[in-house]
Amino acid sequence: MRNFRMTIQYDGARYQGWQRLARGSEARTIQGRLETVLGRLAGEPVAIVGASRTDAGVHAVGQVANFRTAAPVDADSVLEALGRYLPDDIVVTDVAEVDERFHARYRAKSKVYVYRVCNRRFADVLARAYELHVPAPLDAAAMGTAGRSLLGEHDFRSFTALKSTTKSTVRNLMAFEITVHDGKLALRFEGDGFLYNMIRIITGTLLEVGAGMRPPAQVAAALRLMDRGEAGPAAPPHGLCLEEVRY
Amino acid sequence: MRNFRMTIQYDGARYQGWQRLARGSEARTIQGRLETVLGRLAGEPVAIVGASRTDAGVHAVGQVANFRTAAPVDADSVLEALGRYLPDDIVVTDVAEVDERFHARYRAKSKVYVYRVCNRRFADVLARAYELHVPAPLDAAAMGTAGRSLLGEHDFRSFTALKSTTKSTVRNLMAFEITVHDGKLALRFEGDGFLYNMIRIITGTLLEVGAGMRPPAQVAAALRLMDRGEAGPAAPPHGLCLEEVRY
Repeated sequence: MRNFRMTIQYDGARYQGWQRLARGSEARTIQGRLETVLGRLAGEPVAIVGASRTDAGVHAVGQVANFRTAAPVDADSVLEALGRYLPDDIVVTDVAEVDERFHARYRAKSKVYVYRVCNRRFADVLARAYELHVPAPLDAAAMGTAGRSLLGEHDFRSFTALKSTTKSTVRNLMAFEITVHDGKLALRFEGDGFLYNMIRIITGTLLEVGAGMRPPAQVAAALRLMDRGEAGPAAPPHGLCLEEVRY
Repeated sequence: MRNFRMTIQYDGARYQGWQRLARGSEARTIQGRLETVLGRLAGEPVAIVGASRTDAGVHAVGQVANFRTAAPVDADSVLEALGRYLPDDIVVTDVAEVDERFHARYRAKSKVYVYRVCNRRFADVLARAYELHVPAPLDAAAMGTAGRSLLGEHDFRSFTALKSTTKSTVRNLMAFEITVHDGKLALRFEGDGFLYNMIRIITGTLLEVGAGMRPPAQVAAALRLMDRGEAGPAAPPHGLCLEEVRY
């Protein structure tokens, strides 16, 4: 069996997220689309593993995935087939044969996501598909203070949409930065992993801080209370993008 | 009669261009959409004049238009109504009451357009709606030389899709620049006016120069021959954006 690593960009708008759904609905997920093309090329079913399972509507410019196959394909033919048969909102920019032990999810050291907000009176029309428009002024400094209070290893169950689960809800938020340029905010999150909807719920909570609806200190308090009801709503998916997976 | 000037951004993808078509098809043009909202607000038909009649599929971030009305409206109420009733791919960012003699088209000194090209092996997925993807390497220096040979006042009939017309095809190309950043080309055109499809045909011709299919000197030769057949094909509309109108 040979093992291939891919780097993938996609516009999430038309998809129900990364993860394959039931048989017959492959066209609605990024993973399903990729597996359909790869399966035809390999002449056998191909299962791919993505580093991060992005939600419906979330974009990526640096998703990483791998798949194993015994079929006689090489990296160039895989890249060529994907370029030819994928729709124009999914682009694979790199394919490389890698060590058989490489696993896109388990081997990832961290994932970097950016949530973009256009904080101007009027939306930026040509960027509207990739950033949230918030016309009322936001206090980015307060948002930064609140965001940094979540740094480190914590039980983030206050910030996930997942109900009771037997899996751990402890994650390590390794970096958080907020930058402002010309009325546009970029919230950058780096972590060893993120729970379902976690970045969107943190962002929604920080937007309440930015709007003056919630003091910055209340964000760390919401974390400590381990109760989803203490956090804000999930920000919409279209502002979020998986930028990079680090190994 | 009072006179209002507006600044408008739009994503041209869904529209048949700026200019109003036959009655009943207002929804298919930018001008028609604006006139519909303004007509309801004013309680009477409103005719607006745009500085530049952008083609179907062409975008704008700095279109300027004006309209005259006797209705008791002010700039704030116009801006508010437009923000409420326009679709999200058309945004009016400024409305001001101006001198009655202001005319968006006749008073314009120049218009600035930018044509964007992604000259990388793979398209940039999140920008694909606003730039042309050309995977084969382009010689930007040769394109710049060829483009600069068109500077000044000339009869540009070789570079328009309009057939015989009694109107002048003389225009002044006041500035042309090409910049390259990270594999992305921006072709910037400033002129006193542009013929139908003129920028897209110049761009299509320069792309042939960039690909090595046409020597740079042949572009000025095509200009002199005053024959549409001497120029290249029109580049697709989605790479073009009206950036600014200068008065």
